[in-house]
Amino acid sequence: MKIGVLCIGDELLKGAVINTNLAYMGQKLLELGIIPELSLEVPDRPEDVVRGLDYVMSRADFIITSGGLGPTADDLTKPSIAEHLGYPLELCEEAAEAIKARWMNLKRGTLPFHFLNQAYVPKGCEVLMNGFGTAPGIYIATKEQDRFPGRKIVMLPGPPSELHPMFDNQVLPIIIRNMDVKIYSKLFHVSGVPESKVEEAMQPVIESTPELSVAYCAAPEFVKLFLSSHCEESVTSASAKVRGIFADSLLSDDSRTVAEEVVHLLGRAGHKLAMAESCTGGLISSLITDVPGASGVYLGSVISYANEVKAGTLGVKEETLRQYGAVSGQCAAEMLNGVCEKLGSDCGISVTGVAGPGGGTLEKPVGLVYIGVRYLERVQIIENHFRGSREQIRARTAAVALNTLRRFILGLR
Amino acid sequence: MKIGVLCIGDELLKGAVINTNLAYMGQKLLELGIIPELSLEVPDRPEDVVRGLDYVMSRADFIITSGGLGPTADDLTKPSIAEHLGYPLELCEEAAEAIKARWMNLKRGTLPFHFLNQAYVPKGCEVLMNGFGTAPGIYIATKEQDRFPGRKIVMLPGPPSELHPMFDNQVLPIIIRNMDVKIYSKLFHVSGVPESKVEEAMQPVIESTPELSVAYCAAPEFVKLFLSSHCEESVTSASAKVRGIFADSLLSDDSRTVAEEVVHLLGRAGHKLAMAESCTGGLISSLITDVPGASGVYLGSVISYANEVKAGTLGVKEETLRQYGAVSGQCAAEMLNGVCEKLGSDCGISVTGVAGPGGGTLEKPVGLVYIGVRYLERVQIIENHFRGSREQIRARTAAVALNTLRRFILGLR
Repeated sequence: MKIGVLCIGDELLKGAVINTNLAYMGQKLLELGIIPELSLEVPDRPEDVVRGLDYVMSRADFIITSGGLGPTADDLTKPSIAEHLGYPLELCEEAAEAIKARWMNLKRGTLPFHFLNQAYVPKGCEVLMNGFGTAPGIYIATKEQDRFPGRKIVMLPGPPSELHPMFDNQVLPIIIRNMDVKIYSKLFHVSGVPESKVEEAMQPVIESTPELSVAYCAAPEFVKLFLSSHCEESVTSASAKVRGIFADSLLSDDSRTVAEEVVHLLGRAGHKLAMAESCTGGLISSLITDVPGASGVYLGSVISYANEVKAGTLGVKEETLRQYGAVSGQCAAEMLNGVCEKLGSDCGISVTGVAGPGGGTLEKPVGLVYIGVRYLERVQIIENHFRGSREQIRARTAAVALNTLRRFILGLR
Repeated sequence: MKIGVLCIGDELLKGAVINTNLAYMGQKLLELGIIPELSLEVPDRPEDVVRGLDYVMSRADFIITSGGLGPTADDLTKPSIAEHLGYPLELCEEAAEAIKARWMNLKRGTLPFHFLNQAYVPKGCEVLMNGFGTAPGIYIATKEQDRFPGRKIVMLPGPPSELHPMFDNQVLPIIIRNMDVKIYSKLFHVSGVPESKVEEAMQPVIESTPELSVAYCAAPEFVKLFLSSHCEESVTSASAKVRGIFADSLLSDDSRTVAEEVVHLLGRAGHKLAMAESCTGGLISSLITDVPGASGVYLGSVISYANEVKAGTLGVKEETLRQYGAVSGQCAAEMLNGVCEKLGSDCGISVTGVAGPGGGTLEKPVGLVYIGVRYLERVQIIENHFRGSREQIRARTAAVALNTLRRFILGLR
């Protein structure tokens, strides 16, 4: 099966919205061993939609569109594509009822008439009900006598809060049902190992496992390692080898970020986290509190951007600030002690550094970051020299801090 | 001029990397009144690159590619496109010297031989030197006798830290030089006004201004309002009207986020900000510290996720937590007082609420958020009922908090 993606919306080309839908679907498809052939972004104009669809259909047989299914005047995906494929639109009663019920629930008065446009669907299609918005999705498998035979087309609404659950619960099963060969796959998150080392370590596994396909994706916090094969045994045996090779560096199977893994591990261990952030300015706290249920394991943080806050709230000694400066291992250690004591925790992270672009000196250049990590009796202060932009330095700092804490909780060196 | 974008890289289709380059370039182009005709993402395979280029060239005459210019085996954009267009590659001495100098600077030993591949460029092209990485960019204007005449093609490296400055400093001037008609434009950020109200208020301006084109893009923190026209006077007069209509709601011309505006205004006023965040968990602090130079106006924050931290560090009364609960206007007010007193500030933000997906009750549902804002003598506690996912509720909370502070600093109601 060759999958193509068509993303519809002026806002994507105007830069008002970043296309996160492609990345979301790409990740999920990769777990099935599928990489889309292409993705095309086009404006909301009907002629662009159908021209784009034609091009994607020329390169793929399973097409996923996102966007343009809503009730407003520029939502033209459904009528444009239905007309192009030669399907008349007809009212879907179930979708109409769902739209009315959802509107009633919002208590905003009479349903605007044009809202029911969303309930008109191509005749003979499968309607994908939308539990998180009003516009239903569409699934059409074109017939042999159709203008474009042998195509499968799924249309999804553009908002990620609607597209994500519909893709997971309704589209993935359709894709799996339509796959020519069953693909077995396994995703690992290898944290704290550079991509080149992961590739190197995988060479013997690849050589010794027949028909195994391996893909790597590097992110600041880990390398994603995907195994896939149409042979189940190849994936099973390679997975066992991966667990052996990267034992200490793998996130659990159900964690998708290191923050999620830390929340999970702390929950199991029954300890609570406190943080003192300077140059990351709340980023690590924000990553931890992105995880639903973080409140069970996270006490809070002191963002001590100014030296007065390092001294006043965290109790960093004036002497330390004077002698070593705010960006120093000594300061990171005192911030860590201070926040753990203040918040009554025996598990903590502290960060102080120069994220740039300004503020660097010859002695303390941009990218110099001290990270302190404590878990019960174990404490470590790490000096890091990160490269990159302000954003990259902050992201890498968060990755190292959270991964170090993860290793401490697991009792790893 | 019709612009088309071609983004090259398996990682985009695998979902390992979100395509932020398109959004970045789209925003900058919109300021010139240009919306790209399309954007296409393709894998790293040479046949996909040239097939994709052909399609984009069939729809646009100015093509920007991103990705695939680096030194590794899967960086095939340049040779594939050069061969396809019929240009031989030749060594660019200046680029080779820059690559060597950059490598020396990194102090990583001998330059790997394949790194110099990056210095081979299509004969007769303009080389766009890269100040932030090793791979130079390329600009080719095809000639009348060429296989594809009348095309302008710019190739840029994929990493945003390299693409952004090269696009701004090298590509935009080429585009402006090549524009058939000069387009005048103006971008406004209207904060705290819903998109539908912005559109409504703009109707009389549109009707009374000849040849004006208006575009809106809604984000959680503002609506972007773009005016453009080939008639300078139309943009000037419409801009004056916009400044009149939205006076209180416009960010300054040089601010691109509300956080940036707040940092700018506080710097001018000479006051320093402290924050107490609960359900946003560091997000607002992180937005403020995303702004380079935030250290001049930002003291720090207490992220009081746990009630013990609200009570212990911020001094919220046990009685308040017992009687009204942590999600209450009373608690927000005491958090605000507490953090301002603790950090010695007369400017502060406090947030407490239910971001979901769990933790909601009938009385305090998901989306109920209390925001406290103080600027000198003026204090306000706002009760909000936000809809959406955990992520959306957190983003909307940050937008309201920062916009309220912005209005306070400006002395607006």
